Amino acid sequence: MRKSIATVCLSGTLTEKLTAAARAGFDGVEIFENDLVAAPLSPEEIRARCADLGLSIDLYQPMRDIEGVPEELFDRNLRRARHKFDLMRRLGADTVLVCSNVSPQTLADDSLAARQLARLADLAQDHGIRVAYEALAWGRHVSTYDHAWRIVEQADHPALGVCLDSFHILSRGSDPRGIEDIPGEKIFFLQLADAPLMAMDVLQWSRHYRCFPGQGGFDVTGLVRHVLNAGYDGPLSLEVFNDVFRQADAGRTAVDGLRSLLALEENAGVSPLPAPVVPSGVAFAELATGDPEPVGTLLTALGFARTGRHRGKPVELWQQGAARVLVNTGTSTRRSGTTLAAIGLETPDPAAAARRAEALLAPALPKRRAVHDVPLEAIAAPDGTELLHCATDRPGLPSWTDDFEPLHDAPSPAGGITGIDHLALTQPWHHFDEAVLFHRAVLGLRPHDSVDLADPYGLFRSRALTAPHGGPRIVLNLAPGPDDASGSRPQHVAFAVEDIVTTARRVREEGAELLRIPANYYDDLQARYELPADELETYRDLGILYDRDERGGEFRHCYTATVGHVFLELVQRTGGYGGYGAANAPVRLAAQRR
Amino acid sequence: MRKSIATVCLSGTLTEKLTAAARAGFDGVEIFENDLVAAPLSPEEIRARCADLGLSIDLYQPMRDIEGVPEELFDRNLRRARHKFDLMRRLGADTVLVCSNVSPQTLADDSLAARQLARLADLAQDHGIRVAYEALAWGRHVSTYDHAWRIVEQADHPALGVCLDSFHILSRGSDPRGIEDIPGEKIFFLQLADAPLMAMDVLQWSRHYRCFPGQGGFDVTGLVRHVLNAGYDGPLSLEVFNDVFRQADAGRTAVDGLRSLLALEENAGVSPLPAPVVPSGVAFAELATGDPEPVGTLLTALGFARTGRHRGKPVELWQQGAARVLVNTGTSTRRSGTTLAAIGLETPDPAAAARRAEALLAPALPKRRAVHDVPLEAIAAPDGTELLHCATDRPGLPSWTDDFEPLHDAPSPAGGITGIDHLALTQPWHHFDEAVLFHRAVLGLRPHDSVDLADPYGLFRSRALTAPHGGPRIVLNLAPGPDDASGSRPQHVAFAVEDIVTTARRVREEGAELLRIPANYYDDLQARYELPADELETYRDLGILYDRDERGGEFRHCYTATVGHVFLELVQRTGGYGGYGAANAPVRLAAQRR
Repeated sequence: MRKSIATVCLSGTLTEKLTAAARAGFDGVEIFENDLVAAPLSPEEIRARCADLGLSIDLYQPMRDIEGVPEELFDRNLRRARHKFDLMRRLGADTVLVCSNVSPQTLADDSLAARQLARLADLAQDHGIRVAYEALAWGRHVSTYDHAWRIVEQADHPALGVCLDSFHILSRGSDPRGIEDIPGEKIFFLQLADAPLMAMDVLQWSRHYRCFPGQGGFDVTGLVRHVLNAGYDGPLSLEVFNDVFRQADAGRTAVDGLRSLLALEENAGVSPLPAPVVPSGVAFAELATGDPEPVGTLLTALGFARTGRHRGKPVELWQQGAARVLVNTGTSTRRSGTTLAAIGLETPDPAAAARRAEALLAPALPKRRAVHDVPLEAIAAPDGTELLHCATDRPGLPSWTDDFEPLHDAPSPAGGITGIDHLALTQPWHHFDEAVLFHRAVLGLRPHDSVDLADPYGLFRSRALTAPHGGPRIVLNLAPGPDDASGSRPQHVAFAVEDIVTTARRVREEGAELLRIPANYYDDLQARYELPADELETYRDLGILYDRDERGGEFRHCYTATVGHVFLELVQRTGGYGGYGAANAPVRLAAQRR
Repeated sequence: MRKSIATVCLSGTLTEKLTAAARAGFDGVEIFENDLVAAPLSPEEIRARCADLGLSIDLYQPMRDIEGVPEELFDRNLRRARHKFDLMRRLGADTVLVCSNVSPQTLADDSLAARQLARLADLAQDHGIRVAYEALAWGRHVSTYDHAWRIVEQADHPALGVCLDSFHILSRGSDPRGIEDIPGEKIFFLQLADAPLMAMDVLQWSRHYRCFPGQGGFDVTGLVRHVLNAGYDGPLSLEVFNDVFRQADAGRTAVDGLRSLLALEENAGVSPLPAPVVPSGVAFAELATGDPEPVGTLLTALGFARTGRHRGKPVELWQQGAARVLVNTGTSTRRSGTTLAAIGLETPDPAAAARRAEALLAPALPKRRAVHDVPLEAIAAPDGTELLHCATDRPGLPSWTDDFEPLHDAPSPAGGITGIDHLALTQPWHHFDEAVLFHRAVLGLRPHDSVDLADPYGLFRSRALTAPHGGPRIVLNLAPGPDDASGSRPQHVAFAVEDIVTTARRVREEGAELLRIPANYYDDLQARYELPADELETYRDLGILYDRDERGGEFRHCYTATVGHVFLELVQRTGGYGGYGAANAPVRLAAQRR
């Protein structure tokens, strides 16, 4: 289906917005009136710019407070409309959005509204324009889509139809099944927005918190299915008012929006994408650093052994159990201190995964093909982390490990680490929702609920994504405010251990420091959980944190010091504990601030 | 009355919070459990630190999900409480906050809750501790203060009383008059918070949007009166959860909080402050600049004349009608480009105004007393702007103009400017609410509603403050996000004119540029207001913007180019128009971005 985006979704001047929409690959735009009014381009110039960019102008919006008013006022409204229809002719737009009246002057009289909308449609028709009437969720008398449709039906005018907006319909809790009772040709336009489920004033919710489909809590897909069943064949058009999008880079927002529509089309059965290839695990975490010593010391203390050296690049492989860490000291990585630069995802079919990523507009990265290199399908996540679809020693597939020359003098790994439990990535604040949708749509991971974590200097927002049947766990964090004193975006790798006490003791014996946790935490733990005294003392001594879920699942974890922007965590899960110790995050964050 | 603040109001580590509270002048603190748990100090060390700082520990909080539960669970809760009471003894805290139970395990049984709270109070009494029971607005069965009081009354235990919290009471819409039915000695504690009036989930509202009394929409003063009438004589204690405060400088937040309590005490008739001295007008606006040429050119074009030179400093006085502008090229001001550095407020009694400012913790600035200088009472507004209480040529008072040597060759002013209409100051984002309270409490200005203004790159928040009977108008703006590309905080001075067309023509004839407004704006204006064609063409030519209010009041305004961080506006008000042309702000902001 054709895909459009309202200019109000994007940051910047009208020119910047149009350019961003076209570059992302949209077919058309809705011109939001305020964007046109503030633009230095004439309507004819905007029309030409859109034509140059290959964009149709699918909607001009909004026209407000028109219908259901005393006759004298309606005459004034018609004069206002005539100006706008003239403008639309210059612009080359043939559909106008008319929102249900919110002003105190409108009367609760459907027949009056229908008669006046028919007169408006007469005037529109003379200009070659169609009127799409939409029920605002906070319309004074008309606030539901079925009510708007009853008025349109009564008006019975060929140039008058309805505009359906998923936000207005779903935020009111209307049943979207009734959409199928509207003849498809009378649905003149479909606007799509999602939103996080919030109990708040619907106008504020709409104006500040909308997001792209798949980023919030509405069943936008279900609504689209009903609209398609009704016979609608116009564009799928995004209309999102979002305080963060207003400030974010327009080009990225446009790509994020188009990705959301592609995923929506797949879910609604409109047009398939290459099937998701869900990663089955983490093949490796790659740390980039200018100085490999501190990282090496830390890995050694954790019981990792250096088991391989890349045949063509300054990259070393460290291994313990199924946990593999690459330490890359290539020149291109030295500038920003030690970072978590890449994640190898163990993927059943790397080539198929790459096809899906490409279809969903994930930026592909060069395949790093040196003379001997195994080609790796690499994409960039929204935060810049490289994601590599790969296979580790699996029959029939090239293994990325073949690029590494084994080191025969490597000592046996000895720290009790069995694998990578999860990876935590702090996101740039403009792109949190984009990152969640990316990991969900491109990698097939499932997002869990968002939680707030108190840092001494602000609130973190944290959201985990996991594969449905085991596999990688990725935690996306949003640090409090861009004013964050450190300016860094810390990331961490959490390793799974069988017995955290044994591993933590070993780490300390090897001379590495574990994050020190205040004694008050253990006094509180005692009050909350009544752990055996010796267990508590051991945790106190080693800095091990403890959490228990409602079903008795337990989580024990501790942290290393931070090297550059990266720190490491040891975690031990028992009894099906599925979280990440959120209750302990404030204590950990405060300890890391010291 | 004694004044306290909960540590959760302030950003930082526990030590930073305590220091900030003490420096601001609070008498005591509430220790929020999470702050203690995350602190490296032992309870004894925290106690000693508070003693050193002269702070009492007035409350330990919160204890959750205690009462109204099956007996076996209550036994566990009592064991948990015993741990906390031991901790409180070490800390030297004698009152604990117990919140009404929110867990699914609690039963709707007031007698059970009363019996268990009495048993908890028994245990507390053994430790020398009092239990203050508070109804959370989202408590499972107990969510109103009168319900909590009925349970406390039924429990009838000397160590059990209620804690009243203005947020929980006012957010539920409870009638606070019933507070007077509670015996004063059974009100163990009073927590104060305000909040903007929002229709949203009360838990989210409480956790993220609380603010200090006087910064939101609740009648906190009225509630305090009822509590005092009941006979309460404990501390007034602030408890605010606010996402911005969590990130802001703790020292400033603490001063802001104490100022809010001082103003509250005045309003509630508890303890008077020096009476407000409301400014009657703007004596002058002072621009600081390293290069006086561009500013001088602009002022000349606007019809200002250079009428005086400061006797001891590199400051020149420009004047037209009652509009006076100082241009200061002193070395201390050269670093940051051209800024609006100071505002002279025409004040009936400058010395009395200074006494009130001091009582409300406004930072006093040196009185700039040079050999011949008239002493000026100067304070710093939260954004760093100097506010000077002064008198202009008024009998019996020294006039600041006496410092200026008249320039006899000055041409007569000729631009039709009659005075300063308003001053608009962009605020640092952490301190917007602080600034509103400051201007309200210290200067006696009245805040108007907050409005959102769309800039191409984000939303501005804007709030005007005006004197009740004419006098200065100050508009505080909050720019979108600290990521704002320019990094600057633009400020502007708006001059009142009698006939904007004449003045704007003159400005252009003098060779100064007015901000160019797109033609589309005028097409839209025509559609909305049907202005006479020649009037519209004149506005289009000169870049004059137009607005009309519901009662027919009209506003015409236009803008100069920006010099450094400052631009100038010409405004013409007729028919009692009281706003600032908010509808035109998006067009103006977009034009300024070009």
